[in-house]
Parts: sequence; structure tokens; C-alpha cells
Amino acid sequence: MIKITLPDGSIKEFAKGVTPIEVAKSISEGLARNVISAKFNDTILETVSPINEDGALTLFTWNNTEGKKAFWHSSSHIVAQAIEELYPNAKLTIGPAIDNGFYYDVDFGDNNISEKDFGAVEKRAIEIARGKHDFKMRSVSKAEALELYKTQNNPYKVELIENLEDGTITFCDHDTFTDLCRGGHIPNTGIVKAIKILSAAGAYWRGDEKNTQLTRIYGISFPKQKELTEYLHLLEEAKKRDHRKLGKELELFTFSQKVGAGLPLWLPKGAALRERLEQFLKKAQKKAGYEMVVTPHIGQKELYVTSGHYAKYGEDSFQPIKTPKMDEEFLLKPMNCPHHCEVYNFKPHSYKDLPKRFAEFGTVYRYEQSGELHGLTRVRGFTQDDAHIFCTPDQLADEFKNVIDLTLYVLGSLGFDNFTAQVSVRDLNNPDKYIGKVENWEKAENAIINAAKEKGLDFVVKSGEAAFYGPKLDFMVKDALGRSWQLGTIQVDYNLPERFDLTYKGSDNELHRPVMIHRAPFGSLERFIALMLEHTGGNFPLWLIPEQAIILPVSEKHEIYAEKVFNSLENNEIRALVDRRNETIGKKIREAEMSKIPFMLIVGDNDQEQNTISVRRHGGEDIGAISIEKFTDLVNNEINSTLKSF
Amino acid sequence: MIKITLPDGSIKEFAKGVTPIEVAKSISEGLARNVISAKFNDTILETVSPINEDGALTLFTWNNTEGKKAFWHSSSHIVAQAIEELYPNAKLTIGPAIDNGFYYDVDFGDNNISEKDFGAVEKRAIEIARGKHDFKMRSVSKAEALELYKTQNNPYKVELIENLEDGTITFCDHDTFTDLCRGGHIPNTGIVKAIKILSAAGAYWRGDEKNTQLTRIYGISFPKQKELTEYLHLLEEAKKRDHRKLGKELELFTFSQKVGAGLPLWLPKGAALRERLEQFLKKAQKKAGYEMVVTPHIGQKELYVTSGHYAKYGEDSFQPIKTPKMDEEFLLKPMNCPHHCEVYNFKPHSYKDLPKRFAEFGTVYRYEQSGELHGLTRVRGFTQDDAHIFCTPDQLADEFKNVIDLTLYVLGSLGFDNFTAQVSVRDLNNPDKYIGKVENWEKAENAIINAAKEKGLDFVVKSGEAAFYGPKLDFMVKDALGRSWQLGTIQVDYNLPERFDLTYKGSDNELHRPVMIHRAPFGSLERFIALMLEHTGGNFPLWLIPEQAIILPVSEKHEIYAEKVFNSLENNEIRALVDRRNETIGKKIREAEMSKIPFMLIVGDNDQEQNTISVRRHGGEDIGAISIEKFTDLVNNEINSTLKSF
Repeated sequence: MIKITLPDGSIKEFAKGVTPIEVAKSISEGLARNVISAKFNDTILETVSPINEDGALTLFTWNNTEGKKAFWHSSSHIVAQAIEELYPNAKLTIGPAIDNGFYYDVDFGDNNISEKDFGAVEKRAIEIARGKHDFKMRSVSKAEALELYKTQNNPYKVELIENLEDGTITFCDHDTFTDLCRGGHIPNTGIVKAIKILSAAGAYWRGDEKNTQLTRIYGISFPKQKELTEYLHLLEEAKKRDHRKLGKELELFTFSQKVGAGLPLWLPKGAALRERLEQFLKKAQKKAGYEMVVTPHIGQKELYVTSGHYAKYGEDSFQPIKTPKMDEEFLLKPMNCPHHCEVYNFKPHSYKDLPKRFAEFGTVYRYEQSGELHGLTRVRGFTQDDAHIFCTPDQLADEFKNVIDLTLYVLGSLGFDNFTAQVSVRDLNNPDKYIGKVENWEKAENAIINAAKEKGLDFVVKSGEAAFYGPKLDFMVKDALGRSWQLGTIQVDYNLPERFDLTYKGSDNELHRPVMIHRAPFGSLERFIALMLEHTGGNFPLWLIPEQAIILPVSEKHEIYAEKVFNSLENNEIRALVDRRNETIGKKIREAEMSKIPFMLIVGDNDQEQNTISVRRHGGEDIGAISIEKFTDLVNNEINSTLKSF
Repeated sequence: MIKITLPDGSIKEFAKGVTPIEVAKSISEGLARNVISAKFNDTILETVSPINEDGALTLFTWNNTEGKKAFWHSSSHIVAQAIEELYPNAKLTIGPAIDNGFYYDVDFGDNNISEKDFGAVEKRAIEIARGKHDFKMRSVSKAEALELYKTQNNPYKVELIENLEDGTITFCDHDTFTDLCRGGHIPNTGIVKAIKILSAAGAYWRGDEKNTQLTRIYGISFPKQKELTEYLHLLEEAKKRDHRKLGKELELFTFSQKVGAGLPLWLPKGAALRERLEQFLKKAQKKAGYEMVVTPHIGQKELYVTSGHYAKYGEDSFQPIKTPKMDEEFLLKPMNCPHHCEVYNFKPHSYKDLPKRFAEFGTVYRYEQSGELHGLTRVRGFTQDDAHIFCTPDQLADEFKNVIDLTLYVLGSLGFDNFTAQVSVRDLNNPDKYIGKVENWEKAENAIINAAKEKGLDFVVKSGEAAFYGPKLDFMVKDALGRSWQLGTIQVDYNLPERFDLTYKGSDNELHRPVMIHRAPFGSLERFIALMLEHTGGNFPLWLIPEQAIILPVSEKHEIYAEKVFNSLENNEIRALVDRRNETIGKKIREAEMSKIPFMLIVGDNDQEQNTISVRRHGGEDIGAISIEKFTDLVNNEINSTLKSF
């Protein structure tokens, strides 16, 4: 008999050789029906793998990340079988699960696949799935494994196997199909009810551009047809809300091949949007006692030797900027903290001066492979809404709470109420990994956890996830499509104060080390604006949107009145524009609707006589003819209801 | 007889061999007494040099730049004689006139000079001057010249002579002193009535740090003792107003050795000052139809190959930033225009869209030798208040006028009314030097000159000073000490629109080239703030100054009321601070006076009872006890009287 510990801590006894699915059945038939993968101690198992020793067992269903992984990995086997049957000359390579679905890299030779062929693959794959074939793992000798793929004339699998040790090699069989595989499958193909091939793209064998280019087939699968339908709808929605598409349509930003990939050029409307976000945060930060500073975008080698970053500048970074002086070189700044440490150091400080809170919209540059670049979310230059707080250890708890308050205010005012947080603390088993006094770490970790509790955050604590220099708290927000985005961070740092020899004179007249907090509620303006675009589909909160209203004169004779309305609105600080084109009012309304401007102000004969504007909201609601003052009140009330108080 | 043309165009006949001083006498004895140098055609003459052919003669007095140059050059001979007498082992090298005075580079050997020795040199120099010795030029053969300095054991003069051609070598004698010299002296030493040695500094022979280090003796001289006294007073004033000193005292900016020389770190008060200047200009620019854009601080090689700048990147620049990709390199941007051209190019334009006016506070980086760096006026990174206007050739005249209006508004609101302008136009004899159609150049030059006239600018037109790509207008301002500073520039550009293939569709439905205007009213924020500091001595205009008022509670019991006053002022958007220290009110007032804060608000028993504040202006004026509302009005009225309307 062996002892199996379940996630709730209970221990059950089973005969040696028991399988996860049998353990599930011993709990309930319903669970057993849903279990599709399992983990024994730290190893992923098949649901039918025998367990021969004491240990901890976790059972996974479709609702767990691990369950989805097994589901999609298994689906890639099914699709591979379909491809093998439909394309007899195709050579299979590898086919893992990914965050959303799976892929399989295939060498199609001269007979490449394209979108029009996807239907046939899906059809055959679902036929195979319906066969309810069990996935069965078996060990094979290296010689046997090589034999199979040499016969199939598949150099890729041969190369993979040659790098494996004899005795560790396993195959997975289902139906007529066999694949080299380490395991981690669902019980049988029948659980997969819906399969969709999403796209095909080029990919180099082993990611090396010197190798053969393969075709990467992306797919996704679900245990219910309805879930696939929903997912495809979500994809469609996400495509419409793609910030790269919206950024272009709304003329917010652009990229230029000459300037360089990953370096956004902010067009007038985008620059104005940034300015509004910056002014909004500056105002809140001023209230919260921050002071703005401005530092250069480069720093001398010595700065980064001091900070410790220089040692980490690898060949995959922007390389140093040489100068005519042999011993002088500069680096593009990848972060603002070293500069802010030098700002702190410009004069001696007393405990009475602390906390000092230096904020900067600091543009930083980090090299990314061109293949990794993606719109505004993966760029080579971005502006952090950065600040560094220098305080005494005793002030840390309050400062942390204040930063959470500021972050909640910022995210709330931008329409995000659905967020979670992660507190990253030390690995207590690994105390040598961390810099700084143990008592300070304890104080800081407690401060963060208490602050998170006190502020009512929905948070998890992760041991061992802290950086070597201090614990931290990260904010994740969910967008309108339910996707998670990592946003702002609050991070304690005991390292840089040491390295830059930062001090303050305490009430004891001795020199002490301040603690440093790094924080950025938005994370970066680029990433945040990308998120806002995808979250709102371009329908920004009224206070933030580039144009709040568009004035539509019914005909040419209403143009002078339209300009008068425009000037009144400008005096009332409402951002409007006039559609001066010689088009029908119907066309003007239709196009204004497309442009996502929140209010259409139609001005015709009646309005001109009565000194009113006929207001229509984006999306259709007809508010009717009201005075400019009433409209101004309407706009201001709506803004005030979004902007939280701080 | 020969014909001499005078600057007023009149032509006089003289006997061959006539000297400038004789020509002066023929005009008036008074003029002859004041003439100290002369130019014949394009050559500087001694006042006693004979003229042997027809030509144009200009006579210079102390009031001309050329007169001062001759005066100071001659003074350097006098000082050199004094040094030779007092330091028999010293070896003289070169001693030219500079913008303010002259210097002489001397190898003092082991017997170096220091400040305490300056008095003796000045005393002997003025004795020599009083001897009224004539400056007399004579030709010498190369052999004779070498002979003299070899005897004197002076390798520097020997090296200079060895590089000269026999037959072109001249010496200048006065009293017992002889120097190798090309000429350009005042008539005799007696005109120099006051001589001051200002400083001594190290300088390498021929500016090459591989050579011997010499001592550079800086001096200045005047035709009247009173002028020297005034000049020394001015120097003293300038020292007090040195922006590097004030910037530190007022905690506006600092430099860090780690970050790197020439890269200012803006401290909170300095960053707030920049922000106010930026917001002020942004507001005016918005009214003037500009749109803000934001572009990165680096650009790919291709961008600068297109702009033509890449070819000019020499070894004395910041070197390119390499990346892991062999064929990819970036450059720190030394100007914003190439980026703005790419912004223009993000979509096709019609003539109806123009002008487009893209503005950016763009931080640029240019390498300067560390020896050339000076506070905020010579830096390696600075922020231009840049904008580029893209317009049709027909719009150029109006756009140019609008830019002048904006510049006058900006400078006027900052207290500068005393400025001049220079219009730089083509050299008509050198038409091939310039890019762009002749008719466009004519149009542009006329537009600039007419705009300058129409706006009542005090300007000069300089032929041949235009850049190859277009004519321009530069603004110079005089600060409170009468010193000239080059500030903003407005520049027409026909080159970049070609290189970036910028187009717009005209009303004829054909593609045309827009014209581009570069403009920056401040020039750069760094340079402008340096100028403001030296011009105002830190007493900025009220709307700009970091702290407008300081609240001084008479004793501890008035502190709560002081905080109340502070909050009221903050609500009224007046920037104030409270002196919360436990010091006597007398000390608080003295220190507030030092800190240049425009208003001291003293609050004691009476104020607390009457709800008033006792207002004292920086500099002494006692305004008495008034209400916070009255004080707010006072501040706002003062601000409105400075800020011009726009």
C-alpha cells in the first residue's frame, strides 16, 4: 500500500500502482469524468500512469492551466496525425502547447499549406478525435527510435533523438499515430470536441535563421463546440480592438522604417493623449508630495558600474556609445533609478527632509529582437511614469500605503476596477540570496502585506519571487475581453542605496541608509495606452479622449454659428472640432459615429435661432437641443463621475 | 595721386603714400585723435602705413570692434615687454586679442607666475604705456628672424617662423621690445591708459595636449581708467550672476561626475521652472496652431543617411550605437528635424491640410570636448523648444511673420525688450552653393526681410551667411549687463523636403514640395534658463519664479494660522512655502531676503486677529497688512503686466 497526499492535506491509502484516474474515481465519479491531467510531486503524469510510492498528487481539469496544457498538447498530436495523413511527404518536428492553444512545426517541402487547406485538416482531426483513441506512452530504445524516423526519412526527429540519452526515450501512440514525446496527455482523443487551425507562419528549425524554414501551424481546441465559438468571437473582438490598428485609425502613433522598428512616433492626437495622462498623474503626484526632476537619456559607464547594471550589459543590448576620449563611454539609459540616486546625492540630507519623492516621465531604451517587437507593448523605447521614494525604514509602511492609494486612484479614474495584485517575498530557505538586513526585509514584507490587506486588494503572496534587492507588489488588470495585463509595480530596494552610498543624518546625528521604493502606476505610457485602446476599443473615458465633441453644421449657412459654438466650447475647455466639409448631414453623422467621438453636436436653423445645439451621443442616444451651458455641465458631470477623488 | 573711397561713398584724392591718420586729419583733427586702426579694402593697416593705390578706406576708433581689437593686440605687446623684463627666462609664444581683452601664452619655466605677481606686471606695463612709444612694423628676412629667436633660445617663435615664407615675415618694435607680428596696432602705447591682468590658466602649445603646457595670461586694457573700473564692476556683477553659482544656490540643477560632464540633472525647483516655461510656450503655440508630437531620442542610421547628417558624423561626435544585428546601428539624435519629417510622412497631405506645425520639446545630444563645457550654456544634452512648419511656398511669408510674433511675445513676456536680429541671405556671386529654386529663394528672402521690417525689428542683413539649404533670421538679446546672447532662430529649409521626399497634393492635383521652417524661440531650455539667471540675477519674473512668497510666522503660536494662509494661497494658485523653523523672525526675514523670494508674508498676532498678512517685497518695500484676496490681486496684476497678450 502507498500513501497519497491530496491538495486539501488529506492522506489516502491505495494499492501500489494506482493511477490518478483511479484516485479521482475514489473521490467521485464526477471528478473522474473531468480529470484530464495530473501532477505527482513535481512531475506531470498521464491520468493512467501507475503510482508506486508515497507522495502528493494534484488532479487537473480543463479549468486549470495545467489541464489546458495537457488538452492542447494532446490536440497537437491529433492535428499532427491529420497532417501526416493529408500530406504524406510532410516531416513533423515539434508541437508543444502554448498559452492559448498549441502549434506544430512542419516541413511541408514543396507542398506548403495555406489558409484554404485548414478546413480539411480540421475536418480530419475532429474525425480522429471522435474515435476516442487512448493516448498510450511507451519506452523505446534509442536504436528503435532512430530506426522509426530514419525509415520515415525525418532528419528533425533523428536530430532530436540523437541528443537524448538511451533509456529516457518515450513514444506516445494513439490510433495509427506515433510521436516522440515526454508525456502529459489527456486520457483519450474523444475529450476534444472542437479543433480550429488559426494560422500558419514561418519558423526556423530550432529558432536559428541559418536552419531550414518550417511552417508553424497554430491551432486551438476545446472540450465544447460552444467554447470554440466564444473564443473565435473574442479573437474577432480583439482584432477589432488591436491597438496597432486603432492607433493608426485614430492617428495616435506611427512607426517609421527609417527611424527604426520599435520606436514609436507620437502623432499630434497621441502626443496630446500622453500629455493629458501625464498632467493627470502630475497633479495627483503633486498632491501626494512628489517632486518632478528631469535627467538625461544617457549616463556614463561609471554610473552603471556603480549601479551594477554595467556587468549585465550583454551582447543582446544596445551597445555603449563611444566618444573621442578613449576612456569615456556612455550608455542609453535602460532605467531611471541610477540617475535619481545621483539627484538624491546632490546634497546631504537629514531625517527631517525625508521622504524625498522624485518623479520623472523618463524615456528609457532597451534592445529587443526585431521579431519580438509588437506595437506599443514590446518596444525599444518607452516612457516610464517613474518615481523613486527615499525614506527611513520607519516610513516605509506609510509610503507603501500611499503608493497603493495613488495607484488605485489612477487605475480607477481610467475605468479599471477589476485588478489583482501579487506580493513577491523572499524564499526563506535561501537567505543568502538577498541583500539587506533580515529585520528590514521582515518589516518591508509585513508592511506590503498589511498595506495590501488594509487597502482591500485582491492579492496573492508568492515566496521566492522577490528580487535579490527587495520585495515588491505588482498590479494586474483585466481588460474588457477578460485578458490580463501586467501593469504598475511597487518595489522596495535595499541595493541601490548601498551601491550609491546614499545617506541621511538621523535624529541620533549618525549617518543611516535610506530605503528606496521604485514605483510606476502605469508601468509605461506606451503599454498603458495600448491597454487603454484594447480595453475601450478606442472609446476612451471622456476626460481623456482626444476629441470630446464634433460640431456638424447642417448646411453651409450654419457654418458661422458652428464656429461660434466651437469658440464657446473652447472657452469652456471642451475639446471639439467642426466638420467643415461640404457633405450631407447624413454622411457627416455616419462618419462621426465611426470616429468614436463621444458627442455629435448638430447645428441647424432651429439651433441657430434658439442658441442651442442638438446633442447626439456616440452609439445613438439622442439628447436633444440644449444650451451650450447645459452641454458643458453634462460633460463636466460625466468627467467628475469617472475621475475618482484623491 | 590716388583715389580713396570713404565709407559714406565719398571719394577724396591724396598723394601716393598717404597714411590713414593723414586721411583722418584731412577730415577733422578730432577724428585723427581718435583713430587707432584702419582697413584698406579688406586688409587691416597700421594708422601710419602708406597707401599707394586707389581703394576703400575705413577708419576705426575705440568704439569699433576692429578698433578694440587693435587696441588689445597692441596691449598684449606692452604686457609681453613687461613680462620679458620681469621674467628674463620666460619664453614668449603668441598673444592675440580676444573678444574681451587679450592673452599671451608664456613658458615661464620653473619660475611660474601667480595672482600675487599680477600687480607688478600691471605696474610695469602701464609705465611702458606712458612712454608713448610708437608701434613700428618692419620686414625681416627669415634668416634674420630665426637668428633673433635662436639667440633668445625661444623654440616657440623659431617653430612659428619656420612655418612662414621668406619675404612675408614682419616684426613690430616699440620701446625696447620686438615681437614677431603681422601688424594691426594702434599708433602708440600712450593711448593705453589702464591695464589689468585678469587671470592665468594652463594652455598647451598649439592647443595640443601632447605639447608643453604654457601659462596663458589673460588681460584687458582701456583708453580711460574709468572704463576699466566699470568693466571690473561688471565682471564682479557677472560673477555674482554666474548661472552656475545661482543654479546651485537656488537648487535648480546639478551635475554628477557619474552621470557625466555636460549632462545636467534638473532638481525639483529647476524641473518645475522648465515645466512652467514649457507650459507657457505650449499654450502660446496651441493658439498659434501648432500640434505637439513626441519622437524618440535615437534614430536608425538610415534616417541620418537620408537627412545627409550621417556623412558629417565625425570622430568628434558621439559614436553610433551598435546592436546585436550587424547591419543595424542607431545614433543619438543631434536634432529633431529628421524625425519630424517622418511624422509629416505618416500619411499623404493635401494643400488643404497645410501648414502643418509640429512642435516638440526635443532633447538632443551633441558631443563637446570636456574642456569646452560650461554650465548650461555649453552642454552635451539639451532640450530644444523645437518646431517644424511644413507649408506651401505661398504660405511662407505669413508663417514667417507668425513665428516672429510668437518669438516677440515669448521674449517680451520674459522681460527682454532689447534685442536685435540678423537676416542671413545668399551670396549672389555664388549661386551654385545653394539648393532650391532661385525664385523660391528670392521669395523667401523677401518674405523674411519684409516680415522683419513689418514687425519693427532692429535687424541687419548679411549676404552669404545663409546656410546652403535656406535663409534664416537669428535673434540676439542683451542681458542686464549689456552682454549679447544668441537665442532663437527661424530658418527656411529647401533641403530636407527634397531628401525626405515630402509632398502635398496641390489644387492642380499634382504633387508639390512643401517648404520647411525650423524655429526655436528659446533656442534651448538650458541656454535660455542660463540667460534668465544671468539677466535677472535669479530674480525671475513673478509668473516664472519657483516660489512666489514665503510665509514667516512670528512665533510658534502663529504656525496654525500660517498653514491656513498657505492653503488659501495654494487654492489661489500662488506658489508659497512656510518657514517652519524655530528661529527669530529677524533671522527668518534676513534669510528670506537672501533667497530672492519676491514676497515675504509675516504673520503675527494682529494678522491672526484681522485675518491679514503683512507683506514685504524682496528688496525692502513694506506693503503692510492686507487680506489674502488683496495679495492675490497684487500678484495677478503684476503677472498680467509682464505676460504680454497673444
